[in-house]
Amino acid sequence: MARAPRPTGSALAKLPVAVDAMGGDRAPGEIVAGARQASQAGIAVLLVGRPGGMGATGGLPELAASEVIGMDDDPAQGVRRKKDSSLVRAAEAVRDGAAMAMVSAGNTGATMASALLRMGRLPGVLRPAIATPIPNPGTGRPPTVLLDSGANAECSADMLVQFARMGAAFSRKRYGVELPTVALLSIGEEKSKGTPLEKETHSRLAAGEGGGGLRFVGNVEGRDFFRGQADVIVTDGFTGNVALKTMEGSMRFLIGSLTELLGRPGLAQAAEAVIPALLPLAQELEPEATGGAMLLGVDGVCVISHGSSSAVAIVNAITVAHDLAVGGLVEAVAEAIAESVVVGTTEAALESDPPEKPTPQG
Amino acid sequence: MARAPRPTGSALAKLPVAVDAMGGDRAPGEIVAGARQASQAGIAVLLVGRPGGMGATGGLPELAASEVIGMDDDPAQGVRRKKDSSLVRAAEAVRDGAAMAMVSAGNTGATMASALLRMGRLPGVLRPAIATPIPNPGTGRPPTVLLDSGANAECSADMLVQFARMGAAFSRKRYGVELPTVALLSIGEEKSKGTPLEKETHSRLAAGEGGGGLRFVGNVEGRDFFRGQADVIVTDGFTGNVALKTMEGSMRFLIGSLTELLGRPGLAQAAEAVIPALLPLAQELEPEATGGAMLLGVDGVCVISHGSSSAVAIVNAITVAHDLAVGGLVEAVAEAIAESVVVGTTEAALESDPPEKPTPQG
Repeated sequence: MARAPRPTGSALAKLPVAVDAMGGDRAPGEIVAGARQASQAGIAVLLVGRPGGMGATGGLPELAASEVIGMDDDPAQGVRRKKDSSLVRAAEAVRDGAAMAMVSAGNTGATMASALLRMGRLPGVLRPAIATPIPNPGTGRPPTVLLDSGANAECSADMLVQFARMGAAFSRKRYGVELPTVALLSIGEEKSKGTPLEKETHSRLAAGEGGGGLRFVGNVEGRDFFRGQADVIVTDGFTGNVALKTMEGSMRFLIGSLTELLGRPGLAQAAEAVIPALLPLAQELEPEATGGAMLLGVDGVCVISHGSSSAVAIVNAITVAHDLAVGGLVEAVAEAIAESVVVGTTEAALESDPPEKPTPQG
Repeated sequence: MARAPRPTGSALAKLPVAVDAMGGDRAPGEIVAGARQASQAGIAVLLVGRPGGMGATGGLPELAASEVIGMDDDPAQGVRRKKDSSLVRAAEAVRDGAAMAMVSAGNTGATMASALLRMGRLPGVLRPAIATPIPNPGTGRPPTVLLDSGANAECSADMLVQFARMGAAFSRKRYGVELPTVALLSIGEEKSKGTPLEKETHSRLAAGEGGGGLRFVGNVEGRDFFRGQADVIVTDGFTGNVALKTMEGSMRFLIGSLTELLGRPGLAQAAEAVIPALLPLAQELEPEATGGAMLLGVDGVCVISHGSSSAVAIVNAITVAHDLAVGGLVEAVAEAIAESVVVGTTEAALESDPPEKPTPQG
């Protein structure tokens, strides 16, 4: 099935960002509001959703999609059965050169499946991975990119080596880190720690299989998050997802406890002094500020926003999607993988383990 | 090698708790200080360490051990080569009926290896696991027991089913929960989520293979920690260790940020009001208060204290070790496993996968 290459350069720069208006806990209201703000800020946006069902669109261009894949729908079935859904149509818009990127705050698994099935994998990519930025407040360092944070529950060392390459390309394009440091998440600093997966991945990355676009710095542990220990942290999608949700849960618990405490009548005066001082930290930690997670390894830019995204989160997601599409993220990821395919590692892996179907773990 | 059964009942109650005086970042000073406090509170203690090298022992009984396994020593080698180390001698004291339990803040892997090799596994136990209590502040619920939190990087479903049984026995003995709820750590609530390990474990626990001593409540996610969602959370030792360290790192980061902030000159007055209000929460979260982690599945009580343990942490660890030894923890774990051996599940697993050597992952 021959397909025209996606637009690049100035042709790409003229395209809008396709926004799934129906996806997310606060859709379509907050999503459309965010899209309108992004448009006012000068980024072309294409709203994808039910005609007449998107609320006050402010005259933004629309792409009609009669169906919606719900937050609780099975991802693979949703994409298969709802071919006229906003998610599938948004991914098709990128595939067909009608949009430069897609953004959705909807069902994560279905977003992945739509992007994977409609945009397709980049040549040589075993499995796409979700890259999530984790802030490093107070360190002066850009966020650390954690991947895979949930696309693939089961991973091979071949996949983890590719995640290192893709993550480094993302860190470079997103945060301007010239030679990103890459670490492997394990349960001790020594290379002998972990399961056979970590041991093999460690030895291959230490042997330079990550290529020239990154510097491997060994293992890190769960306690090294937020400390700016590496620009990229690589792990399987099960561990990455548990770690990410554990961070979220821990933060939410402590911040909730603190908020409750500062709301007590006797502490009103103290709260007045403390809360403004807390704001910069709270802003750095705010997931809405990061622009969301990114699906790497597909032939197009796909930003996965948090399900609870507000208009502000959507503005950030659209801005990041735009900047990375124009900045050549997909090309950079493709190059990082192509380099390894030439070396031969990946081709062998591809032949022995054909990655036929997506494994969404939303 | 026939071995006399360990003492039980009133004979056991007369025995001291063996304390590794040489293990931990603050050994022997804080360790011995904690042992003395526990002794003053009425718990018999046996200090294990270098004669004359333990500081002010206050006349506590001593068991001589000329060697020390360092925090960075390889666990298996350390135990093999340093047969006269404080850790190995402490474990032998329990084996030989000279102590009711052992406590160490030293090298975690070596503590596990000593306990495993000297005390031995309980009949039918595939692999011992580390159980770590995680507080549930503000919920009115006892801590949640997370296991395995680092003993076995690689696990089978057979092992996870045993962890459920052992964890429930621990929750019952330690916190008095009559019928503990047990959850499986995964990346989604649906039973279809996770790797084949979680799917198989879920289906077997749902089918009742955890036995009558627990109630299986399905999957939980990383964001469910601190919320009292289950009395026991079961996972493999790799994921458990990453989750535990991620919690620790997240908490330490936020508490550190808050402490820095409240130390600013302009906030002195607010700090004076806020800090006392924060104390109850800080105390609930303080790892030193929990009494430490516990190695379950060996034939004796073995408490693994945090490497940075102070005298207070050691007092708590000795108290917990004493109470659980007298309260019959080992017998309860043995019963929970024996029940499954009768059913036949474990015997088959034992034959097909003989667990020969410890896999310490300190």
